[in-house]
Amino acid sequence: MKNDTRFTVVYHLHARNKAEAEHFSEKIGIEQSVEMPLDTVPGQAKHSLPELKSVEPLDESTWQTSISYPASIVDGDPTQLLNVLFGNISLLDGIQIMDVSDEIFTDVLKGPAFGIKGIRELLGVPHRPLGSTALKPVGLSAHELSERAFLFSESGIDIIKDDHGLANQQPAPFHERVSLCVNAVRRGEQKSGKRTLYFPNITASPQLVFERFYQAAEAGADGVLVCPQLTGLETLHNLAKLKKIPVMAHPSFSGSYIRGNHGFSITFYYGKLWRAIGADSVIYPNAGGRFLFSADQCKALNKQMKAEFCDYKPSLPTPGGGMNLETLPKWIEEYGHDTLFLIGGSLYRQPGGIKEATRKFQKILDDYGT
Amino acid sequence: MKNDTRFTVVYHLHARNKAEAEHFSEKIGIEQSVEMPLDTVPGQAKHSLPELKSVEPLDESTWQTSISYPASIVDGDPTQLLNVLFGNISLLDGIQIMDVSDEIFTDVLKGPAFGIKGIRELLGVPHRPLGSTALKPVGLSAHELSERAFLFSESGIDIIKDDHGLANQQPAPFHERVSLCVNAVRRGEQKSGKRTLYFPNITASPQLVFERFYQAAEAGADGVLVCPQLTGLETLHNLAKLKKIPVMAHPSFSGSYIRGNHGFSITFYYGKLWRAIGADSVIYPNAGGRFLFSADQCKALNKQMKAEFCDYKPSLPTPGGGMNLETLPKWIEEYGHDTLFLIGGSLYRQPGGIKEATRKFQKILDDYGT
Repeated sequence: MKNDTRFTVVYHLHARNKAEAEHFSEKIGIEQSVEMPLDTVPGQAKHSLPELKSVEPLDESTWQTSISYPASIVDGDPTQLLNVLFGNISLLDGIQIMDVSDEIFTDVLKGPAFGIKGIRELLGVPHRPLGSTALKPVGLSAHELSERAFLFSESGIDIIKDDHGLANQQPAPFHERVSLCVNAVRRGEQKSGKRTLYFPNITASPQLVFERFYQAAEAGADGVLVCPQLTGLETLHNLAKLKKIPVMAHPSFSGSYIRGNHGFSITFYYGKLWRAIGADSVIYPNAGGRFLFSADQCKALNKQMKAEFCDYKPSLPTPGGGMNLETLPKWIEEYGHDTLFLIGGSLYRQPGGIKEATRKFQKILDDYGT
Repeated sequence: MKNDTRFTVVYHLHARNKAEAEHFSEKIGIEQSVEMPLDTVPGQAKHSLPELKSVEPLDESTWQTSISYPASIVDGDPTQLLNVLFGNISLLDGIQIMDVSDEIFTDVLKGPAFGIKGIRELLGVPHRPLGSTALKPVGLSAHELSERAFLFSESGIDIIKDDHGLANQQPAPFHERVSLCVNAVRRGEQKSGKRTLYFPNITASPQLVFERFYQAAEAGADGVLVCPQLTGLETLHNLAKLKKIPVMAHPSFSGSYIRGNHGFSITFYYGKLWRAIGADSVIYPNAGGRFLFSADQCKALNKQMKAEFCDYKPSLPTPGGGMNLETLPKWIEEYGHDTLFLIGGSLYRQPGGIKEATRKFQKILDDYGT
């Protein structure tokens, strides 16, 4: 990074007219940089000041503005980038971050270590759409969970991830659960004749999460699940930088950042920021399910994760919820093959039990080739 | 914790009638516990199920409901508590968490290590209201910042905290900044004849933050500033548990959780949750300033930080913004003496410069005794 590099943030703002939009933009720029009245900024710190680049109307009360900041106030620090993007203005209203220019990403964040290709290589499945389910519920013993993992695995599922609510609870302590489930999955593979990957949930305090990561890898887990908005977003980056096993990111506790007209656009937040931060797979709530993303938002997000962006590897889009075996083919049409379809609850509910449901699920995917 | 302990979460929900409120509540309970359709929950996991305790109307479209959960699904894990409180439902709409019963806090979180009394003891000021300012802006060198720290300190300010935008940037690298500023503050104390505490900002990746914490303590800093929503909330708890120096919590990146009708109530989030998580002082945006909290919200929050709660030490309420030397006496009336008044930008702006402004500020506080 050169000393005078700058990067641009694109906002959508709520304002009644151009003057108000300009004033609001200037306020945002100051708040996210020097954080003091302009007339009190000493000469030696003027290089830290933001610059308002453009103010354009979108409709009667919405404006698109862009502000450039010196990269020196971020100085290569991922957590400080988040602070500059949305630190204090998180406490304001009517500001949505739509995009951020590539320079600062390249400078600060490394992207996924495995991405779609890496996960496909682990599975030995180069082309067809991929399938996943969630191991649950909390309250079962490690042994009981591993029995379920065996059923999924012997029925040929591609990826089993822990429910994000499985932590280190007494009935299924982390280490015991991971060991038993890895073992069950490997036994299942013997019966199915194909690979099944197991991603245990390592979400815990930002300090403990590394211990669990290494424990999981040592026990033979094929990847991990983590909720970055609970562990601190940079934790995900630090895990990805280890390049050891893939990291699947879960949106728990993150919904507040992508709601209404304040926060980040869904496409930017999960599709660019989480990808830049190193998520090999990003779970998102699929349209038509229990959550509120529209079909258009989901399609745009899915596409963004695979679009060209800073030479980062593509993240594997992982829609969850709102799908069952009947609607799966429609979603494959929508998203294309480079998607990991996550079907949890509705698999458990199929008449005929987990094995039959999983076989049907995987059969639909297998019909697309390898 | 006994095996069958339960805790209750109180929500405000948006619903058109009682049946809808009940249905919504049941959906929330399932989402935050077993996360699968009720009819698929195996008998061995039934002990993990939530229980709808009450559904009461507040007005035509708002309902207060309470749901109890087994403490065993949290199992003493602070990050898992956050997950159970607001993990997946962060992705829904119209759910506000108003309160959580004391049992689970006592079970999981330790509260502040120093609190109001501890910070007062460090200052040697038992009764009067306290004053603080922010060291800024980003872009000044470590030496220039330390010159400002000296001016504040020789003028007798109680506490100097770093701006939360000071990380490890080239002009003022963390270690150099902290060393020079601690030194400047100690020299200033010689001139003022009273204590001034210096709290550098240690916000960084959740992994690096401990290194900065220890560096700060070793360099002689009197406390630290941290943005828990950037470092992961449990990081704050892990810092507080060290009981080494006080931790001041900054609300950067947290505003998304306390907006509109979805998230947490302001009083609960900063006044209970952040206190339980160990914040010795909690900065909040004061009414009338650049942010959106109302005077009533601020008063309720200030009060909650000092109210009896689980035998936790009180957090020092630290309103920032919206105050100047003229309005300070009014705010002291509003909040009482157990408050740390944070005046940043407007001190830098006073005619007569930092020294005179700081002396005036501190004089107002000193007039209330010691």
